[in-house]
Amino acid sequence: MSKGVTPKSENYSRWYTDVITKAELADYGPVKGTMIIRPYGFQIWENIKNIFDSEFKKTGHTNAYFPLFIPKSFLNKEADHVDGFAKECAIVTHSRLKSNDKGKLVPDPDSKLEEEVIVRPTSETIIWSMYKKWIKSHRDLPILINQWANVVRWEMRTRLFLRTSEFLWQEGHTAHATQSEAVDETLKILNIYQSVIENYMGIPVITGRKSENEKFAGAEDTYTMEAMMGDKKALQAGTSHYLGTNFSKAFDVKFQDTDNKEKYVYATSWGVSTRLLGALIMVHGDDKGLRLPPNIAPIQVVIIPIYKTDEDLKKIKDYIMPISNELKEKNIPIYFDSRDSISPGFKFNEWEMKGVPLRIEVGLRDINDRKVMVARRDTLEKISFTHDCAAIDILSCLTDIQKSLFDQALNFRNENIHTTTDYNQFKKIIAETGGFIKCFWDGKSETENLIKNETNATIRCIINDVDDSNAKCVYSGALAKHEVIFSKAY
Amino acid sequence: MSKGVTPKSENYSRWYTDVITKAELADYGPVKGTMIIRPYGFQIWENIKNIFDSEFKKTGHTNAYFPLFIPKSFLNKEADHVDGFAKECAIVTHSRLKSNDKGKLVPDPDSKLEEEVIVRPTSETIIWSMYKKWIKSHRDLPILINQWANVVRWEMRTRLFLRTSEFLWQEGHTAHATQSEAVDETLKILNIYQSVIENYMGIPVITGRKSENEKFAGAEDTYTMEAMMGDKKALQAGTSHYLGTNFSKAFDVKFQDTDNKEKYVYATSWGVSTRLLGALIMVHGDDKGLRLPPNIAPIQVVIIPIYKTDEDLKKIKDYIMPISNELKEKNIPIYFDSRDSISPGFKFNEWEMKGVPLRIEVGLRDINDRKVMVARRDTLEKISFTHDCAAIDILSCLTDIQKSLFDQALNFRNENIHTTTDYNQFKKIIAETGGFIKCFWDGKSETENLIKNETNATIRCIINDVDDSNAKCVYSGALAKHEVIFSKAY
Repeated sequence: MSKGVTPKSENYSRWYTDVITKAELADYGPVKGTMIIRPYGFQIWENIKNIFDSEFKKTGHTNAYFPLFIPKSFLNKEADHVDGFAKECAIVTHSRLKSNDKGKLVPDPDSKLEEEVIVRPTSETIIWSMYKKWIKSHRDLPILINQWANVVRWEMRTRLFLRTSEFLWQEGHTAHATQSEAVDETLKILNIYQSVIENYMGIPVITGRKSENEKFAGAEDTYTMEAMMGDKKALQAGTSHYLGTNFSKAFDVKFQDTDNKEKYVYATSWGVSTRLLGALIMVHGDDKGLRLPPNIAPIQVVIIPIYKTDEDLKKIKDYIMPISNELKEKNIPIYFDSRDSISPGFKFNEWEMKGVPLRIEVGLRDINDRKVMVARRDTLEKISFTHDCAAIDILSCLTDIQKSLFDQALNFRNENIHTTTDYNQFKKIIAETGGFIKCFWDGKSETENLIKNETNATIRCIINDVDDSNAKCVYSGALAKHEVIFSKAY
Repeated sequence: MSKGVTPKSENYSRWYTDVITKAELADYGPVKGTMIIRPYGFQIWENIKNIFDSEFKKTGHTNAYFPLFIPKSFLNKEADHVDGFAKECAIVTHSRLKSNDKGKLVPDPDSKLEEEVIVRPTSETIIWSMYKKWIKSHRDLPILINQWANVVRWEMRTRLFLRTSEFLWQEGHTAHATQSEAVDETLKILNIYQSVIENYMGIPVITGRKSENEKFAGAEDTYTMEAMMGDKKALQAGTSHYLGTNFSKAFDVKFQDTDNKEKYVYATSWGVSTRLLGALIMVHGDDKGLRLPPNIAPIQVVIIPIYKTDEDLKKIKDYIMPISNELKEKNIPIYFDSRDSISPGFKFNEWEMKGVPLRIEVGLRDINDRKVMVARRDTLEKISFTHDCAAIDILSCLTDIQKSLFDQALNFRNENIHTTTDYNQFKKIIAETGGFIKCFWDGKSETENLIKNETNATIRCIINDVDDSNAKCVYSGALAKHEVIFSKAY
C-alpha cells in the first residue's frame, strides 16, 4: 500500500490494474483467465447487486436457479446462438480422476461422458428447455425469472473485471403472451438498469439499440447502455434483449391463449455483470486510486484519530461518538480506524486508494476548537465543520459527493462526444483525440465493418432512426438510416 | 395441483418428491444429476441465506468470490482431500466446440487444455493457494472469508436437494495465528448454525464431533449437526471443520508472528447447503404437503376471499385492508389471492401444499359478524378472531406456529432416540423401529465399519467422551471411549 499507482496519463492500462491490486478489489486466479473478487471488491458488488435485486423484485420478478451444466446439443438449437458461444466454452468430458502408472492424476477413461456438457456461457437454452415443461396456458404467463449466477466464456487475455473466463452476473429470462408485452419488458429493464447505474454508481450512460453486427446471438433487438471510460473508450454496461420467438421456436414452447389457439411465447433476456466494477474504476478513479460514489461504498466515512497516548485516543473516541452514532442511525457505514502500528499518513493514503468518499481526521486540537475536519475524496478538499451539527453537514456533503461524481463523469463524457459528417475528421478524432462520435450511418453491416477495419471503432448504439434526405452516411455518403455513436470499446 | 401427494406412510420417498414437485420447489435438469430450484423454493433458500449471511457478518466475516475452476494438480496437494473428491469431479478438458464433417458439434481437438481443470467440489485448495499470496505477517490475520457459491460433485442417483451433481452452499474459510483461535472459530460457527436452524427453520439438531470415518477429507476435526427426518433417518444439516495446519502445510502458508518466528497458519472451513431445504421438507411436511415455519416462509399469511360478485370482492378487500396493512408494517409477507378462475377450495389445497403458515378465509358473513377466520397450517385448526384485534392475534398465532413446529419436531425426535447397551437390541431397533441409537463405542474404525456393514447405520456424531470403566462398547464389549449417536442417514 505504501507505493502509489502508475499515473493514468502514463499508462492507463497499468493504472487500472494497479488500482485493482492496491485497493484489494481483485486478484488473478491460478487457472488462466480466472479472477478472485476480494472482500473489498465483493462488498461493492454486493451493494450494487442488492440495489438491482430490490428493483427487480419491486417490478414483479423472482429469483430462481438453473444448472451450470448444459447438454452440448442445446447450444445447437438456435443457429446464431451456437455461432456466438461455441468458440469460447468450457467443455466437461469426464467425471472422475484416477492415478496413472506414474502416480499422476488423469481423467479416468472409464468416466468419459456419453454426451459432453457445456459450462453455461448464458442460460437461454437451459431455461427455455424448462419453460417448455412449465408453460401450457396463458395462465402460466408471464414468467418473470431472474438468476444471479456465474457464467463461463473461455478467455486467454485476462483483464480483471472486464475480460475473464468466469464472471458473475444476473440474467433475467422472461416469457410473455404477446410481442408488445415482451418489448415493454425489454425497455422497462433498460430503464431500471439506467437508473441504478446513474443514480447509485454515478455513471452516465447513453442508451440505444445495437446494430446487427453487435447484437446478442439469438436476439431480435438488443438494447444497450454505453458509458465513457476515463480514457474516452466506451464500455457496454448492460444489455436488454428482445428475443422475439427465437427461443420458443427452438425449444417448441407454445401456450394455449384465451382464444384457445396455440401460440409461440415471446421472450426477453437481460444482464449486468461484475464488469460494472471495471466501469466504476475507470469512470471515477484518479491517480490516488478509487473514488466511490457514497450510494455504493462499503464504507462511506472513515474516521482517523490523530493521537499519541491511549488517553488521547479515548478523548477522541468520546468526542466523535455522538456524530458517529447519528450517522449510523441514518444507515451510513462508518469505520473508525484505530489501528495502532500504522501512521495517520499511511492511513490517509490507504483509504484514498480504496475510494472512501469522506475522511474525518480528528485530534486534540479539534476537540479544543469544537471542530471536525473532513476531507472529500472527490475533490480532495478539506472542510471544517462545527461539532454540533457535523453529522448533518456530513450527510449533506455525502449527497453532494454523489452528485459531483456523476456531474464530473457527465461533463467529461459530453466534452468528448464529437458530431461529424466528415469521414476524414472521423478518422482523425478516433486516432488522435478519442471519444464518442455521433454521426449518421446508412444502416449497412458492410459499412460498419469497413469503418471498424480502418479505425477499430464500432457502433456502440443506435440513438435515433432518421428519415431526412439531408442526412447522409458519414462513410458511404448514402442516405442515412440511423444516427449512431461510434467509438473504440472495451 | 389438483391431486394430492402420495401419503408419507405409503411411500416416503415418493411423498418427498411429490411435495417438491407439487409445491413447485424444484425440478430435474436435463443433464443427469442436475436440479432447477424454482422461484418458490428459491425464495425459501434466499430467506435462509439472508439470515446466515447476516449472522456471519455480525461476527466479522466478509464475503468474497473464488474461481469455479481449480487446476487438477491442486487436488493432489492434500492426500486425504484428493481421495475424498477425485472420484466424483467434473473435468474440463477443452475450450471450444466445432462442427465435425457430419455437422455435429464436437470438442475441437486444437482446444485441448494443457492441464485439465476441475470444477470445484469445495474451495479449500484454491483459497489456500491465494492465502499464500496474501498472508505474510500476524497483521494479516485472522482472515474471515465466506463465499456463496455453486459446487459440483458428480452424482448419478439424483435426489432433489439431497443428492445432486451441482448444489448451492456457503463455504467459510478462515485463517488464524493460533490453534485455539481456530478451534474457537470452528465452534462459534457451529453455534451460529445451530441457532439459525433451530430458531428459524424450526429443526432441532444434535451437535457433536464426527468419527475418523465420517469426517471431512482434510480436516483434523469435523463438527456436525444431525437432524432427524420424518422417516427417523438422520440428515447432516451442516458441518464446521477444524483443519489444523493441513492446508497451510500443503500450500506452504506461513506468517511472521509477533516473536518474529515463521509459523504455519491454522485453518477452519464450514458449510451449509441447499440440502437444508430437503431437511425442511422432511422434518415438517405432512400428507397435505409442505409446512413452513413463519420465520423463513416467503408468504406467512395468505388471504383468500370468498365472493361471487366484484362488489363483494371490493367489500372484502376494504374489510381486510387494515389488518393486512398492520401486518405488512410488521414485515409479515402477505399475499391476497384474488385469482378469478380458481375456486376457494382449490386455493386452500394449493397454499396448504406450499406450506403457508396461516390462511385467512374471508366472506360476506365474516364482515357482518366482524370476524376473521384463520386456518393454521401446522395443526389444520380453524380459529375465529374478532376484526378489531385480528392483526395482533395473527402475529401471536404466527409466533405460536413457529414454536409448535419446532416442538413437534423435537418431541418426535426425542421419542425416537433409543439408548441401548445391547447389540441385538441395537440391530432390532435399526431394522424394525428406526430412529437414533445412543450408545457407547470403543472408538475403533473397525468396530464402526462392522456395525455399518451389518446394519447400514453409521456414527452420526460423538456426543460425549467417556472415562468410566462401566461404559462398554455396544458392539465389542471393550472399554468405551465415546458416547455416540448411530443411525441410518441420508
